[in-house]
Amino acid sequence: MLIKNGNVIIFENDDVVVKKLDIKIKGEFIDKIAENIEQEEAEKVIDASNKVVMPGLINTHAHIAMSIFRGTFEGCDLYTWLNKKIWPIEAKLTEEQVYDASMLSIAEMISTGTTCVNDHYFFSEKIRDALTKSNMRAVITRVLMDNDGEEASNSRVNEFIHLYETRDVNNELITYTVSPHGLYTCSDKVLEIARRLAIKYDLPIHVHFLESVSEIEDIKRLHGNTATQVLKKYFDGIHTILAHGVKLNDEDIEILKTMDCGIVHNPISNFRLGCKIADVTKYIRKGINVALGTDGQGSGNNLDMFETMKIAALAQGGIHENEERIDSKEIIKMATINGAKLLGLENKIGSIEVGKKADIIIVDISPKLENIKMIPNNDIISNLVYNTEGKNVDTSLINGNIVMENRNMKFIDIEKIISKFAK
Amino acid sequence: MLIKNGNVIIFENDDVVVKKLDIKIKGEFIDKIAENIEQEEAEKVIDASNKVVMPGLINTHAHIAMSIFRGTFEGCDLYTWLNKKIWPIEAKLTEEQVYDASMLSIAEMISTGTTCVNDHYFFSEKIRDALTKSNMRAVITRVLMDNDGEEASNSRVNEFIHLYETRDVNNELITYTVSPHGLYTCSDKVLEIARRLAIKYDLPIHVHFLESVSEIEDIKRLHGNTATQVLKKYFDGIHTILAHGVKLNDEDIEILKTMDCGIVHNPISNFRLGCKIADVTKYIRKGINVALGTDGQGSGNNLDMFETMKIAALAQGGIHENEERIDSKEIIKMATINGAKLLGLENKIGSIEVGKKADIIIVDISPKLENIKMIPNNDIISNLVYNTEGKNVDTSLINGNIVMENRNMKFIDIEKIISKFAK
Repeated sequence: MLIKNGNVIIFENDDVVVKKLDIKIKGEFIDKIAENIEQEEAEKVIDASNKVVMPGLINTHAHIAMSIFRGTFEGCDLYTWLNKKIWPIEAKLTEEQVYDASMLSIAEMISTGTTCVNDHYFFSEKIRDALTKSNMRAVITRVLMDNDGEEASNSRVNEFIHLYETRDVNNELITYTVSPHGLYTCSDKVLEIARRLAIKYDLPIHVHFLESVSEIEDIKRLHGNTATQVLKKYFDGIHTILAHGVKLNDEDIEILKTMDCGIVHNPISNFRLGCKIADVTKYIRKGINVALGTDGQGSGNNLDMFETMKIAALAQGGIHENEERIDSKEIIKMATINGAKLLGLENKIGSIEVGKKADIIIVDISPKLENIKMIPNNDIISNLVYNTEGKNVDTSLINGNIVMENRNMKFIDIEKIISKFAK
Repeated sequence: MLIKNGNVIIFENDDVVVKKLDIKIKGEFIDKIAENIEQEEAEKVIDASNKVVMPGLINTHAHIAMSIFRGTFEGCDLYTWLNKKIWPIEAKLTEEQVYDASMLSIAEMISTGTTCVNDHYFFSEKIRDALTKSNMRAVITRVLMDNDGEEASNSRVNEFIHLYETRDVNNELITYTVSPHGLYTCSDKVLEIARRLAIKYDLPIHVHFLESVSEIEDIKRLHGNTATQVLKKYFDGIHTILAHGVKLNDEDIEILKTMDCGIVHNPISNFRLGCKIADVTKYIRKGINVALGTDGQGSGNNLDMFETMKIAALAQGGIHENEERIDSKEIIKMATINGAKLLGLENKIGSIEVGKKADIIIVDISPKLENIKMIPNNDIISNLVYNTEGKNVDTSLINGNIVMENRNMKFIDIEKIISKFAK
């Protein structure tokens, strides 16, 4: 396959540049990148004139079955939202609902440019079924916690083990994390179980971490130490994905720098739950890897990573008054290569490079009424971050497979899944 | 004309509700609103099934010719941006560029649901020509300032007078403000001229006010008093539109409450210029009228008021940690009826009520792939604020005229104007 004439987003050293290049794909892999590749070399040619060709977006923190809760419970703080609103209704979810809601979210992700998601939920074998059917790349888990007693906790551990043990070892599109829900919802016992599972199976940890100010004291009460000290105690030496990290102080940052971990910034969810703004400019300047996530639709509204990119870029101006802060180029890295690093997949995905898997999206920036928000196109990268919407994505490839072409979904029966949720 | 079967956004007392209603339009006016109006009563029927019918959005602070600067100068503070970047290139703009750039912005506004804009610029007779040709409702001005000397200042005053004196008194779609640029760029002399012009012509004032922290001391130095005291000295008793108001303290709020004024909140521009977040929850709770604006595309990226609504709603969670804050319903009022009040047009526009002018937009919320971010549609108002994009607007009416129908522009040659800016 050949993608011709596109404006290709390339990472050169620390810079992000746009170059007119052709890309040849052979099987799962990016095989050749050059200024003019002859069409005869390919069976199929995609014309990307007036389009941007960029690495597929990597959503490093989501709960994809939560599409079902979209538009609910505005204006809550995190604890009220979890304890009074979400957990009671999640307890009534069926496996079938989780499958359908996940399929709806996969369609939302693919149609808005996400090619890999890091999920955090339950009934995860159903989520895996939906992902597998869709040819979507994902990192999945069965969340662990024990704030509701030992029996429920043991079931969760067993469900995680069953999920992992029943994996298809030939399907490299699906990988796994061990995921204690948060340090405020997991006792030392569960954290120790998570640690041992991560070591036994050689998997990363994925945990909610310092999302809300309320956690700080609760974690001290429960574990007798600060959140970051608890994290280091259990997960030092294990690759760890920290969702949120809004409330890090300088001491926390210094400790995290000694660990193998990074932060998922979820600005929309943080805004919506009144958690304020994570100072990701500071985290990045201090050498912490920061990627982007949408969180679930219940708090994050939607899974459109272009919206998350834009709001992440803007949000830093809400805390850095007249100060230097991260720019569009850094935001694009956060949504792609930083995400790949955070998931431990940087050798496979996250950039357009020969030898990497072809997880690529093609974004329409042609001058027409539907793209009027990017006219004049004085700066492609600025427009990608500030004026592009997920629905500008025209074509998406995952692992060399076309999963959407000219906005037609290839592996998902879109009418069927939408009809299940239409009101 | 009859708009049938829509989900109509109605303001009932202080509440915002969605009702299945038909709307009959006669000439410029909304003539009848009822549950089932017979089709025979109308020559033309618009089917609004699976659509939202709502008041046209009112953008209460913009510089529409700045489309030409879209995507430029990321990461500046306000003063650097104005002094080093924008003013030098604005000095080279031609009347023709301002006309074309305004026409491009009018297309952007109409196609994203804005039916009235409050503009703040120069070469304003050209801007008026573009607005008139497009049948767009607008409030215009010729900005006054004298930080570059008396001669330039006098020219601006004369241009304003010429603009106003050459108005078409029969065209009620275009009204006027007197607009000193800001209290830090206008001497006492220009503020006094503005005051007298506003009284002479019975026009509101439209002024940049406490946008950036840098202004506070500069205004004290220039005028010997706080910004709000200066404002009260010159414009007490005159209806005043304050763009930004990010840096109001409690004393400022108490003084503003004694005046006939309100605030335009421009969250995207404030974020992008590192001005932090205006506490509009507090302003509204204290009784100040707050409306929404995009600012120009140079700082605000685009003129899509749906994006501004979403980001305004989210932003309050960046300063109100675990606290009550404005919700989607208040955001919809800010973008419509509050804007009408701020422009002194609340008897004509801003809500769907019998006797008001038909400034109405019809927004597609039907369940299909392009709307997947609003599926399931658990809450129409939440989805309008958090998951709708300007391009969901299907049809727009201004003053009873259809200006866009099924996304076809009626008075603008869209291909021609886009071709002038395509790169």
